[in-house]
Amino acid sequence: MLRSVKATELKEVVREMLYEISQRAMELESEGKKIIKLNVGDPDQPTPKEIIDAAFEAMKQGKTKYSFYAGEKTLREKLASIHNVSAENVVIIPGSKWAFFSIMYLLLKNGGNIVIPAPYWTAYELAAKSLGVETRFLRTEIDSNWKIDTEKLRSLIDQKTRLLILNNPNNPTSKVIEKSLLEEIVEVANDKKVAIMSDEVYRDLSFVRTKSILDFGGNHILVNSFSKTFAMTGWRIGYVIVGEELAGKMVKLNQMTFTNIPVFVQEAALKALELKQKIAAGMRKLYRRRADLACKVLSKTGLKFTKPDAPFYFFPKYDNLDSERFAFDLLDNGVALTPGTSFGDYREHFRIALTMPEEEIKLGLEKICEALQ
Amino acid sequence: MLRSVKATELKEVVREMLYEISQRAMELESEGKKIIKLNVGDPDQPTPKEIIDAAFEAMKQGKTKYSFYAGEKTLREKLASIHNVSAENVVIIPGSKWAFFSIMYLLLKNGGNIVIPAPYWTAYELAAKSLGVETRFLRTEIDSNWKIDTEKLRSLIDQKTRLLILNNPNNPTSKVIEKSLLEEIVEVANDKKVAIMSDEVYRDLSFVRTKSILDFGGNHILVNSFSKTFAMTGWRIGYVIVGEELAGKMVKLNQMTFTNIPVFVQEAALKALELKQKIAAGMRKLYRRRADLACKVLSKTGLKFTKPDAPFYFFPKYDNLDSERFAFDLLDNGVALTPGTSFGDYREHFRIALTMPEEEIKLGLEKICEALQ
Repeated sequence: MLRSVKATELKEVVREMLYEISQRAMELESEGKKIIKLNVGDPDQPTPKEIIDAAFEAMKQGKTKYSFYAGEKTLREKLASIHNVSAENVVIIPGSKWAFFSIMYLLLKNGGNIVIPAPYWTAYELAAKSLGVETRFLRTEIDSNWKIDTEKLRSLIDQKTRLLILNNPNNPTSKVIEKSLLEEIVEVANDKKVAIMSDEVYRDLSFVRTKSILDFGGNHILVNSFSKTFAMTGWRIGYVIVGEELAGKMVKLNQMTFTNIPVFVQEAALKALELKQKIAAGMRKLYRRRADLACKVLSKTGLKFTKPDAPFYFFPKYDNLDSERFAFDLLDNGVALTPGTSFGDYREHFRIALTMPEEEIKLGLEKICEALQ
Repeated sequence: MLRSVKATELKEVVREMLYEISQRAMELESEGKKIIKLNVGDPDQPTPKEIIDAAFEAMKQGKTKYSFYAGEKTLREKLASIHNVSAENVVIIPGSKWAFFSIMYLLLKNGGNIVIPAPYWTAYELAAKSLGVETRFLRTEIDSNWKIDTEKLRSLIDQKTRLLILNNPNNPTSKVIEKSLLEEIVEVANDKKVAIMSDEVYRDLSFVRTKSILDFGGNHILVNSFSKTFAMTGWRIGYVIVGEELAGKMVKLNQMTFTNIPVFVQEAALKALELKQKIAAGMRKLYRRRADLACKVLSKTGLKFTKPDAPFYFFPKYDNLDSERFAFDLLDNGVALTPGTSFGDYREHFRIALTMPEEEIKLGLEKICEALQ
């Protein structure tokens, strides 16, 4: 069905292929087919038991009612203390995607554009497109280790630019922006009076030292989520740290859309933060090992790839590959991955997520390597 | 603070007073003050234990991952069988509010207007305002038992009208639209080719026979929620039943905003549906008794009110009352209610929600009666 679309619709379909493949893989699974899902950043580990128990306790205590649109005070205060901001700056949301959609909705209602380094996480572009926001891409290349060119960045920004979206560490490249480069990027943004929205959902699991946008002051926006660090993808909880004015607008939008995140989910998140050091250390170790394994297996092929700075993605390049066809063919063969075109104009690339047990990762990667030969 | 706003901002503040009072009452409570909260439609009963247990079981089974944007197949199929539609027509959402925001977002992006009988639930207008949608109100009056005038309705609809929002039973009046009148309304909408979005979140607890919009065929939209029927307000789960084209658009919007409702919450909802007959019967009985109690207490005053057809609201009128001042004064006195201006141009009215234990309802109503004397 997907392959028979009209050419005019193709671009949109391509961008959404990440989601199409994800839904298709789930469907195949529910039909009983065995799929090695290297396509989604959804950790295979269960949510830690203590977190589940905290949710259950909260439910039993009756924390099943309407509550504050901004989120629970306890959770906001805890996050504020972690990030060294005021609780007024913290807004609890249903996952990081909500931040991109809602902030673009609020800041770009009356026009304007945003700048996004590519490759980029699909959700940014889909939200922008839905909202009619003009998107300008700053292409980076595997050959220069995905480095952002600040002069190019400067030239892309104009008077109508409202946001620069950074993803640090990056999905799909797992690249961390070095401190000195991040300083330069912030300088450009400050010069041009453009807010940076920094998606740092992989930062707590980073293999290398990773600066937060909040380390640089200014009126920039941090987006974070409990999904990856705590294997809580399906709980739908994340947060933003923003200036009070934007926080106020976001709270009003929460009020008229989803009201509040279930309080028992917020209690689970609070428990997660209490256990963060232990949980994050375990996760990091696990993903580090998987990344090493993937490096080893993939090195045997003609694939070009950069060593990941963070979980859980590889974004290798194979010359002359049509990654869309490749992804669909592989799915028929029991392995799901995402074509590079879902992350920008990267047809020769594909994304692998190391979110399966090691044995399956190994098997999946071997199937990929075979298919490329 | 609320009373010192500029006149130009007043209208917006007034409409949002429902939410201001709700957040203020919660703040006062968290400071240890005793507040009789007759201001929110948030049932005082706990979520039934079986529902909580179902959520916990699902969490333990690992149902904490990303899942289908449209909702779980089992839940959609169950709802489809209840409403005699196809599962493709069912979309699971984070509460009914999401339906209003998202459907207006999708259908009115390129302009158009909506028609809403007044008094109306605040959320409709707030979403419309945020989205820049023109709203036309069809006023109804307590003296004609809140009857919708179909000729007036016809005259309000023009070529740019995209939606008619019905709330049946109504919040704040607890009025059910009689079958014959609903037939007439549907006829007008069909004539004019306007879709009806029918918010029926109180229907399962209605004291009288209440037709659903789905009983009339056509391309109309049902909005429902688990919040009221099952005392699950804080779980944030509801659903819409819509044509397949709009369903597809909603699923895409889900994908780029909140992804999916937590699967364990959907499992809880599925359990709720299994127990629906028993739970709804108990709730109905409880609210019936409270409504009778309120009729009795309020009859002793100069208040004008209509007997409710459904839980849990009364929307009485007191001649020459300034219900905004009244609401704030009462809040200082330990009783929260909502001024009529939150539901349209109804300054002499106020809304009482019978969502507290009977003893407190009695005490709260007596305080209200005293304050009016």
